[in-house]
Amino acid sequence: MAKCISSSIIFAPSSSSTRTLKPSLLHFQTPKRSLRSVLSPRSRNPFSVFIRATVAIEKETPENERPDTFLRATDDPHSSAAASPNTVRARFEKMIREAQDEVCAAIEAEDGVGKFTEDVWSRAGGGGGISRVLQEGGVWEKAGVNVSVVYGMMPPEAYRAAKGGDSLEKPGPVPFFAAGISSVLHPKNPFAPTLHFNYRYFETDAPKDAPGAPRQWWFGGGTDFTPAYIFEEDVKHFHQVQKQACDKFDPSFYPRFKKWCDDYFLIKHRGERRGLGGIFFDDLNDYDQEMLLAFATECAQSVVPAYIPIINRRKETPFTDQHKAWQQLRRGRYVEFNLVYDRGTTFGLKTGGRIESILVSLPLTARWEYDHEPEKGSEEWKLLDACINPKDWI
Amino acid sequence: MAKCISSSIIFAPSSSSTRTLKPSLLHFQTPKRSLRSVLSPRSRNPFSVFIRATVAIEKETPENERPDTFLRATDDPHSSAAASPNTVRARFEKMIREAQDEVCAAIEAEDGVGKFTEDVWSRAGGGGGISRVLQEGGVWEKAGVNVSVVYGMMPPEAYRAAKGGDSLEKPGPVPFFAAGISSVLHPKNPFAPTLHFNYRYFETDAPKDAPGAPRQWWFGGGTDFTPAYIFEEDVKHFHQVQKQACDKFDPSFYPRFKKWCDDYFLIKHRGERRGLGGIFFDDLNDYDQEMLLAFATECAQSVVPAYIPIINRRKETPFTDQHKAWQQLRRGRYVEFNLVYDRGTTFGLKTGGRIESILVSLPLTARWEYDHEPEKGSEEWKLLDACINPKDWI
Repeated sequence: MAKCISSSIIFAPSSSSTRTLKPSLLHFQTPKRSLRSVLSPRSRNPFSVFIRATVAIEKETPENERPDTFLRATDDPHSSAAASPNTVRARFEKMIREAQDEVCAAIEAEDGVGKFTEDVWSRAGGGGGISRVLQEGGVWEKAGVNVSVVYGMMPPEAYRAAKGGDSLEKPGPVPFFAAGISSVLHPKNPFAPTLHFNYRYFETDAPKDAPGAPRQWWFGGGTDFTPAYIFEEDVKHFHQVQKQACDKFDPSFYPRFKKWCDDYFLIKHRGERRGLGGIFFDDLNDYDQEMLLAFATECAQSVVPAYIPIINRRKETPFTDQHKAWQQLRRGRYVEFNLVYDRGTTFGLKTGGRIESILVSLPLTARWEYDHEPEKGSEEWKLLDACINPKDWI
Repeated sequence: MAKCISSSIIFAPSSSSTRTLKPSLLHFQTPKRSLRSVLSPRSRNPFSVFIRATVAIEKETPENERPDTFLRATDDPHSSAAASPNTVRARFEKMIREAQDEVCAAIEAEDGVGKFTEDVWSRAGGGGGISRVLQEGGVWEKAGVNVSVVYGMMPPEAYRAAKGGDSLEKPGPVPFFAAGISSVLHPKNPFAPTLHFNYRYFETDAPKDAPGAPRQWWFGGGTDFTPAYIFEEDVKHFHQVQKQACDKFDPSFYPRFKKWCDDYFLIKHRGERRGLGGIFFDDLNDYDQEMLLAFATECAQSVVPAYIPIINRRKETPFTDQHKAWQQLRRGRYVEFNLVYDRGTTFGLKTGGRIESILVSLPLTARWEYDHEPEKGSEEWKLLDACINPKDWI
């Protein structure tokens, strides 16, 4: 049976549930974006269609130990991919696992109290992941850092669209590979910002009955920053580190990915972003593949220097109940974005990924007050204004 | 310009915002349900298609006083509706406004501390509403009770579908009328249940260029019950009152609408309902119209006797932090259902209804713990089990 999975499932791991659930409730969605649109420069990614045309996720198995790799030892004979350590997929997996270790170590060191608990899991057909969650620590209320590797099948119509549309041949389902790291870090102190980052890599294999057909690959991801209060030095520092990472590769990256981030994290029904942005990109394959691997690596390695110094400055700032209530209202906005708009979350919910892992991105606590409006000119108003009207911070 | 609106907007009222928003972000959705399916007995309601094919909502104007009626004094000359007090629309409006008064008075009396604040609003093209919210009272954390009356335009394709499909004539947009009451009541005490109810009535007018075409009308609504802990006497009492209301009209109503409620309030990604059900129905027009008006009236009048005695028993029950945390986790589930699945909420968010009114259904506070599983056999487990496997309570 075809098993299909997505970048969202880069948040979709392990552990069996003891609950007696009804037969799984999977949803089929009809594509909302026309196949044609998949060919536009920004969406040549066949996944854009694919995620709306596919279904279930193979059940995961808890593992007691972390394997050296989640890659298949030998791939399908029709696929040219193998578990060589030199492939892009192998090097990307190594990179995200190192990034997970590095970020978790930095979080634990800064937190001082909390420790990550770990779930390791695999799937019979290949792939697996490591989910780590720290909850109710000294500094962080909830911090999740997950990596996963996924093998799935892409429906032929999505592949045809990606190849250029009107081909008369009808290849079968196209195998694909995805790997990624995804993390959301919610601190306790209302002056300490929430951080989210996610870096992912996709490949399609040649379809079984069209072995000469070209393969596709692409990168996606970003790092974004969600404070409840603005400290300009924090926001500038955060964006500066993103820009530095981008500028090492292409001077167009930061302005382009900063805008993409502001556009993506929009809570449309409120006309405001969930936070103060950062960088975001998707379907990126129009640069050298080695260059993009190095860029994703640089971005992942920039998480700690971009974020931890800010937490260190803010984690012990005294605050009032009013500051906390405002943070909680902003956490409510985070929930709204993630449940209503985030592609990864909404896809994960609809395809039966592991819910607890998908929803680890939600804050421990959130708040909704009727018709709350900060007083004009207040610190709360300044944050809201910056979410409504994105600024250039550097 | 066509203005279009839905049952969701039965939660969509007043008050102008002081925020500087970007141009409104309205979303067009392609129909997910085929037109054909609209003709099945359970969904002959043209609105089922209509809500997915239409757009924006006319801006509302705050009013200082409640008018006697939100109905148009004289309707469009092509419409046969008028503001006679004997029409079903006029009697339905009167009924929901009386129900709003009655429920708010009962809530204030039981709360002892909190008072409802009121927003009255109208729209230039006709219709309007009254929103009442009580926040951080003595007993309720957040209680919203809203009524509204809406005039809108339904796209011709939805009307054609409703009429029977393959007609060659192409009528213009079809005017419609909707009125409803909608309420969510979230108490503070974790042993006191949340209640939701909503009763609504729709009519279409004849299209302008087909004055002889038949009109459609239908009723929808329900009352459902969401405790964090099960007290069997409470659940039985609540369901018994629903059954009594139903049995006065048709012995098939309670079993049919109880199951419909269990099916509708399913959080699909968790395989669990948000609560312990009640009754729910939609698109109801295959009974005598007078009978259904009386039935909706009976249901609305049953809210206070079904709910207030339970609150009175539970509002002062001593509780621990653990009880409160479990209530907060269940509130998180409430948020998940409303933001991800509730038709009214998701439609309202996508069409630019008044956000604060649509989201007044969200609890004041909510919580998400990673991978929380109640101990088997515990009181929390029993609630969860009943949400996963709906029971017959009477």
